[in-house]
Amino acid sequence: MVNDPTPDPAYRSGRAQDWQAPGLPASRSDCEALDAADPLAALRDRFVIPEGLIYLDGNSLGALPTDAAARVHDAIEKQWGQDLTGSWISAGWIELPQRLGVKLAPVIGARPDEVTVADSTSVNLFKLLAGALRMRPDRLLIVSETGNFPTDLYIAQGLIEQLGGRHRLELVVRDALPQILGRSRNAHERGIGELAVVMLTQVDYRTGSLLDMARVTADVHAAGALMLWDLAHSAGAFPVDLNGCGVDLAVGCGYKYLNGGPGAPAFLYVARDHLGEFTQPLSGWMGHAAPFGFEAAYRPADGVARLLCGTPPVLSMIALEAGLDTVLAAAPLGGLAELRRKSLALSRSFAHRALSLCADRGLVCVTPPSDAQRGSQVSFALPEADAAHAVIQALIARRVVGDFRGPDILRFGFAPLYLRHVDTWDAAEQLAEVLDTHEWDQPRFRQRATVT
Amino acid sequence: MVNDPTPDPAYRSGRAQDWQAPGLPASRSDCEALDAADPLAALRDRFVIPEGLIYLDGNSLGALPTDAAARVHDAIEKQWGQDLTGSWISAGWIELPQRLGVKLAPVIGARPDEVTVADSTSVNLFKLLAGALRMRPDRLLIVSETGNFPTDLYIAQGLIEQLGGRHRLELVVRDALPQILGRSRNAHERGIGELAVVMLTQVDYRTGSLLDMARVTADVHAAGALMLWDLAHSAGAFPVDLNGCGVDLAVGCGYKYLNGGPGAPAFLYVARDHLGEFTQPLSGWMGHAAPFGFEAAYRPADGVARLLCGTPPVLSMIALEAGLDTVLAAAPLGGLAELRRKSLALSRSFAHRALSLCADRGLVCVTPPSDAQRGSQVSFALPEADAAHAVIQALIARRVVGDFRGPDILRFGFAPLYLRHVDTWDAAEQLAEVLDTHEWDQPRFRQRATVT
Repeated sequence: MVNDPTPDPAYRSGRAQDWQAPGLPASRSDCEALDAADPLAALRDRFVIPEGLIYLDGNSLGALPTDAAARVHDAIEKQWGQDLTGSWISAGWIELPQRLGVKLAPVIGARPDEVTVADSTSVNLFKLLAGALRMRPDRLLIVSETGNFPTDLYIAQGLIEQLGGRHRLELVVRDALPQILGRSRNAHERGIGELAVVMLTQVDYRTGSLLDMARVTADVHAAGALMLWDLAHSAGAFPVDLNGCGVDLAVGCGYKYLNGGPGAPAFLYVARDHLGEFTQPLSGWMGHAAPFGFEAAYRPADGVARLLCGTPPVLSMIALEAGLDTVLAAAPLGGLAELRRKSLALSRSFAHRALSLCADRGLVCVTPPSDAQRGSQVSFALPEADAAHAVIQALIARRVVGDFRGPDILRFGFAPLYLRHVDTWDAAEQLAEVLDTHEWDQPRFRQRATVT
Repeated sequence: MVNDPTPDPAYRSGRAQDWQAPGLPASRSDCEALDAADPLAALRDRFVIPEGLIYLDGNSLGALPTDAAARVHDAIEKQWGQDLTGSWISAGWIELPQRLGVKLAPVIGARPDEVTVADSTSVNLFKLLAGALRMRPDRLLIVSETGNFPTDLYIAQGLIEQLGGRHRLELVVRDALPQILGRSRNAHERGIGELAVVMLTQVDYRTGSLLDMARVTADVHAAGALMLWDLAHSAGAFPVDLNGCGVDLAVGCGYKYLNGGPGAPAFLYVARDHLGEFTQPLSGWMGHAAPFGFEAAYRPADGVARLLCGTPPVLSMIALEAGLDTVLAAAPLGGLAELRRKSLALSRSFAHRALSLCADRGLVCVTPPSDAQRGSQVSFALPEADAAHAVIQALIARRVVGDFRGPDILRFGFAPLYLRHVDTWDAAEQLAEVLDTHEWDQPRFRQRATVT
């Protein structure tokens, strides 16, 4: 296993002109005009955005939907406080995993019976990866990439160890994926395929680089293997077409672009064709065919419900539903296609402006400028060791929130549901000021907290 | 594996005199006097108890703490809405599993560094059972009981299947436990022990029958095996002394007597002596030694934090903290010993009164009258098939909430933090009226919902 979590980004450049494109705003008033013409502009009112804050961290924790507090309050005071256990039926608590799955399905291009909401991304990945290996019992190779989000790799390692260490996790850099998949295809065609499953996060959490879901999935299938996507930085940010790409399995996060609140439950997807045979080891009672039959032997429920395990965390599920509804609210305004269009415009404008202002300070972009190759974020690096973290802290002090990812990444996410074009303009200006004035170079900004 | 989840209860009798004891209230005014003298009486004000409701279902879902809504509201509006990602540090979100573990430790007789809060009971059981089997690699037998809560059995089955089917789950009726443990001890002493771990729920969810934790744990250790307790119906209801009993591993539920809200996160305990060597397969990033170091290889955290997996559901954790604080509020008033004293008095009074009034209707109690042998609930059965479910529904219509557990159990839980002695008196009267009038025998009460 490659033990380097931070491969060099494939793209790395300080050239603003790489981001030049027709329609790029050339002034703040251009941005104001874009906001005035934005068909999604009204959706910002569905969120609590603190006064004066430019929040470019929705890829870490989505902003608060305005009605989330009231919904959770009702769930607490009325459903829990007054109706108590009766609410499992009367308030539909027992159906929350399914109800949220149905709402999420169109957001990720899935059928309503292929998606459910439960547990954390890590736990769901364990279920799906374990089930995938059962579907390919004669194959012992799992492929992922060095830059995958670490918890995905840790879960694969934990599963392999539990299965006796016969399986192998091979990590490759993103650019080497075609090569290993080609090799696996050849082996498969010669009847000696060993690749069981490929597990990738569509958007690199550090660089924002986006994988071509259709192409990679097809290449994986050509090698006789199953494809498992992590949609943590995809779902809610742009259209995902799991069905159209023939994806086998997917997991994703509820608290980023789905705005489900801190630590919101995660989701999982199993393609309908696999549901009949799919089994997984976390066989808790909520995945039983008759949870309240209290049978001694496990019998998996029909369909995706067999992927459930324990009792759902109802309050967190209710908050997540408020978040899902913010994404669904975009549907009559152009939906995910329009969100994507806006997100790309926001990130392009920000990258171009920031590089125009800061290239002489050594700022380089590690997010690919091609629309087809980036998700909904822009990430930079700086030449000076440890500067990235301090610059993020200095920006937060100026009420511009991005985040830091080690060792040297400044990360800015663009949640098109609530960000405006003027935000990208202003944020780039603030970044330039922080770099120009060197105000980041102070002990209070250089100090590292446990979590950043 | 025995495939019968509903063994005959060891105790089954309609004799009210079995429950006779000094100090039993003989009238409602006796109950009022007991309430007036109750040192815990003031704790009822820490809960929202709907007007006129007698809630005997706190063993399924604890009542709402009065400050839970405000705490969650603050977590939503201030921490999520205003402070956003900063709250992982500033509001201590990242420390919630540990903070709640420290609060819970004294409730279950554990050291603060042996307990954490995460995931569901089912998921936590999977972690601990998997880890236990690693600690006994040469032993392939897991013992539990036929009447254990089904999800515990399902999880064991799922784990065994995943480990290749070499392990065996043997289910015995509770009365046969000494026999199988004696046999295992003999085998162990002859060097041919095969018992790896015994997994039991201390309080039977149907009958309320209570196991002697110290004795069973000692017997399991004498057989060279590990003891894993499920404290679902124990934690918060009466004193549990995990350390004093030398317990190896435990899991439990946050939403019953801990009042943590619907689907509250669960807890787990690993004895300090085992923490150095204990590993588990759900190795997600929150259990990593440096979660935000983003290393490619999993390195378990020191201590119980290595039992964490994914990102915690913050809102549900905050509600659970409000619930834990209700239990801790009893400490200056006599604590869990006083809660136990009251709980036993409540359940005894209820059982005695109900059987006195209803024995001629065929009502029999399946909960042992001995204080040493029952948890914090009283369960009855009725001779007529399907009557139990309908009687519970008729009682709920009268605002007395118990619950039904198939095939024929009427279950009543006694949460001593908020129940009064008059509640037990009035509930017994209502039960008698429902049976005397046969009002339960109507289609509207006989109708079965999906969940009961």
